[in-house]
Amino acid sequence: MAASFSLAQLAEHCSVKYRGAADSCIEKIATLKSADADALSFLANPAYLKDLANTRAGIVILSAEYLDEYQGAVLISANPQLDYARIANLIYKADQPQAFIHPHASIDPDTTIGSGVSIAAGVVIEAGVSIGNDCQIDANATLCHGVSLGERVIVHSGAVIGADGFGLAFDQDHWVKIPQLGSVVIGDDCEIGANTTIDRGAIEDTVLENDVRLDNLVQVAHNVKIGAHTAMAGCSGVAGSTTIGKYCMIAGASGVGGHIEISDHVTITAMSMVNKSILEPGYYGSGVEAQPHSEWRKNLARLRHLDKTIKKLLQRKRDK
Amino acid sequence: MAASFSLAQLAEHCSVKYRGAADSCIEKIATLKSADADALSFLANPAYLKDLANTRAGIVILSAEYLDEYQGAVLISANPQLDYARIANLIYKADQPQAFIHPHASIDPDTTIGSGVSIAAGVVIEAGVSIGNDCQIDANATLCHGVSLGERVIVHSGAVIGADGFGLAFDQDHWVKIPQLGSVVIGDDCEIGANTTIDRGAIEDTVLENDVRLDNLVQVAHNVKIGAHTAMAGCSGVAGSTTIGKYCMIAGASGVGGHIEISDHVTITAMSMVNKSILEPGYYGSGVEAQPHSEWRKNLARLRHLDKTIKKLLQRKRDK
Amino acid sequence: MAASFSLAQLAEHCSVKYRGAADSCIEKIATLKSADADALSFLANPAYLKDLANTRAGIVILSAEYLDEYQGAVLISANPQLDYARIANLIYKADQPQAFIHPHASIDPDTTIGSGVSIAAGVVIEAGVSIGNDCQIDANATLCHGVSLGERVIVHSGAVIGADGFGLAFDQDHWVKIPQLGSVVIGDDCEIGANTTIDRGAIEDTVLENDVRLDNLVQVAHNVKIGAHTAMAGCSGVAGSTTIGKYCMIAGASGVGGHIEISDHVTITAMSMVNKSILEPGYYGSGVEAQPHSEWRKNLARLRHLDKTIKKLLQRKRDK
Repeated sequence: MAASFSLAQLAEHCSVKYRGAADSCIEKIATLKSADADALSFLANPAYLKDLANTRAGIVILSAEYLDEYQGAVLISANPQLDYARIANLIYKADQPQAFIHPHASIDPDTTIGSGVSIAAGVVIEAGVSIGNDCQIDANATLCHGVSLGERVIVHSGAVIGADGFGLAFDQDHWVKIPQLGSVVIGDDCEIGANTTIDRGAIEDTVLENDVRLDNLVQVAHNVKIGAHTAMAGCSGVAGSTTIGKYCMIAGASGVGGHIEISDHVTITAMSMVNKSILEPGYYGSGVEAQPHSEWRKNLARLRHLDKTIKKLLQRKRDK
Repeated sequence: MAASFSLAQLAEHCSVKYRGAADSCIEKIATLKSADADALSFLANPAYLKDLANTRAGIVILSAEYLDEYQGAVLISANPQLDYARIANLIYKADQPQAFIHPHASIDPDTTIGSGVSIAAGVVIEAGVSIGNDCQIDANATLCHGVSLGERVIVHSGAVIGADGFGLAFDQDHWVKIPQLGSVVIGDDCEIGANTTIDRGAIEDTVLENDVRLDNLVQVAHNVKIGAHTAMAGCSGVAGSTTIGKYCMIAGASGVGGHIEISDHVTITAMSMVNKSILEPGYYGSGVEAQPHSEWRKNLARLRHLDKTIKKLLQRKRDK
Repeated sequence: MAASFSLAQLAEHCSVKYRGAADSCIEKIATLKSADADALSFLANPAYLKDLANTRAGIVILSAEYLDEYQGAVLISANPQLDYARIANLIYKADQPQAFIHPHASIDPDTTIGSGVSIAAGVVIEAGVSIGNDCQIDANATLCHGVSLGERVIVHSGAVIGADGFGLAFDQDHWVKIPQLGSVVIGDDCEIGANTTIDRGAIEDTVLENDVRLDNLVQVAHNVKIGAHTAMAGCSGVAGSTTIGKYCMIAGASGVGGHIEISDHVTITAMSMVNKSILEPGYYGSGVEAQPHSEWRKNLARLRHLDKTIKKLLQRKRDK
């Protein structure tokens, strides 16, 4: 039988106020649209306001500004997404897999593995790896030799941590590989997305501080340092030897160039290219929004001659 | 001995007309340039017209407009690429691997696997997974717990289906992980490229309808819904909770933002960024074509001050 | 005990001159900042000049122009990065893993594997694969049926070589898969990054000539040909049937379209889109640099109407 949680219990768990019958109970979480009376739902994005009026949810997490839009039982939250996360962790934590090491994982005997660690099938852990307590290493992930993880790190399936950095020197007519002698050091509470790659350092280590969160298919090159609590969304990448500060957000498919510095609290919008240091907190971007192709084609044609056209326009002006 | 197919047989198989000796035979497929007399070739892209005159192919698939350009045996096709596909499937189908489950796959006993399914070495299939008839799961792919595949789905090597979505809530000074409670539901006849990642939903499922085709290194975030017959090329991605319609084409390295809607029959050109809903069918894009760097550098410098420059130019006009 | 190398020895190894006591010895390599007296360091990027004055390195590799900036023992190099690579290979080569085949690799009996080959855990090698001498195949990499590698090729973890190309023909209302009958042929001294994907050809082979270097998460589509000594950085991709010349450099997150030709000695800058052939050597690009978002938003708004605005400005001029 599923555990049941009352409105009053949940309000206490989240340290928030509520409106409605204290003993209203829910057993699960659902979207506004699909929730039944035994489900809790939430409104974190105003785009879903249209679903609020008709929801059958037993309890809804709402910010104070939307209280008038809904008549049912409510948890009044300053951050509905956060309180939803807290309640989801309360209800579903018990369902999470117990610590185990799958017999189809391949683990070098020369490794240090903490307590409470889960290692799934197909995982490869090479010599010299150190894994802190309560980490979770998902199927087919690879931890190359010497890599170190803090506590409660989650490595999703297919991620590769500690492959050689892309270090090459050109010798007249061919490439010479530069041995990659550093490793990768990952702090506590980090999450590494599926098929994401984090290269080992050339001489010193590639470093992720605590609570760094990487989505899927992210590329982190050698000797990058990423500050605590920074998040990088899917398909983004950072080139070698760059330092990213704490509390940064790098949106999807953005690229950060090599040998530069990004200060704390910098947000990069989607599909942007950063190739110079950013020393002031704030929002930065260069992503170009799609428009109907017939229009874009004409604008693009102008962009390809922009300098000449503007020179001509400025010149004509002066000629008068 | 290779099977042999006559011009008349192939014309019947494709329901097309032909020109030449009905008993001209071929045994294999080759490009116009490399074909010998025992090979069938085709012209699907006019860029290869230069190879048509000199081809030694026994039979060529041509559209009617090019019949005069070539004197040999011809299948007259309204869609040469499609008829080439049909004939390639006729000739080579027999070569395809039989259903088997490789002993080095790791399959949880709590799974449902249809008939005719191939599962290669290194594949990991977690608890609760359901796989329809005649699916093919290639080496080192991962199907996380609870994922469901329809019939005839092909999952290429290294793909990860059902890893946690990138769900995080910010709590004052750190991230709180949001449990990802949904799964991934994939329809019939889908194809998932090598090292592509499809995340499980946060609450409800991530859904690919029938005949969705994803190339390699594609990222599909949590709660995305992709309509039937839509294709996404390599290195493209879709952010969370976005709905893409049927019969869409997303070209390579394009990004579609989160919480938006793309209607049916939308084509996104390469390296474009879509961050608003697109409600009308058609072509959309924002990819910027490369040009010699010395020119691009000047145009880019103008782009970085475009608003100010245009304001100045418009103002000067008014001043007169 | 670590081996020790004298200044005179290293100078002879690199065929360069030196300054300082011929018997100054080092045992390892370190950055200028962290080096102790037993370490060799180098200055390859002037951004690190600030660390030169205070370094405690026993020996530094410097180009002649910086000799006056430093008083200690110096190897005088025309290419410090190359000489650092040479010395790193001298010192650390002995540490490299010996040839071995891990018992958790899955290797089809119908394969040809040269001498001195290392195959790590989780690797899957399918039927008909051929691997030259001294190759290194890292954990969880996949070599699909029929793929061929030259000598000294390094395939990093998670890479997939030889998955089906993205070949589809549209038949009225659904996709028909085109059998992918070619394979992948990789020359000597190539390096394939972690989670990189190289598709097999549709009819003929996908080809990488000697000394091609691919970083992580790179996508190479079917029937691409990449010339010798070309390097592609992380997250870049090439669409089908394109030919890239020798000695090209494709920077990170760039995309090269299908069915085009790039001549030798072409450099593509980061995040650029190439969709027409480039027949002249040189630098090409279209990457847009990020700027403060408030500025970018205004410039982007202008870009979306660039053609109309410029038409208006040119027209007004004419009206006078």
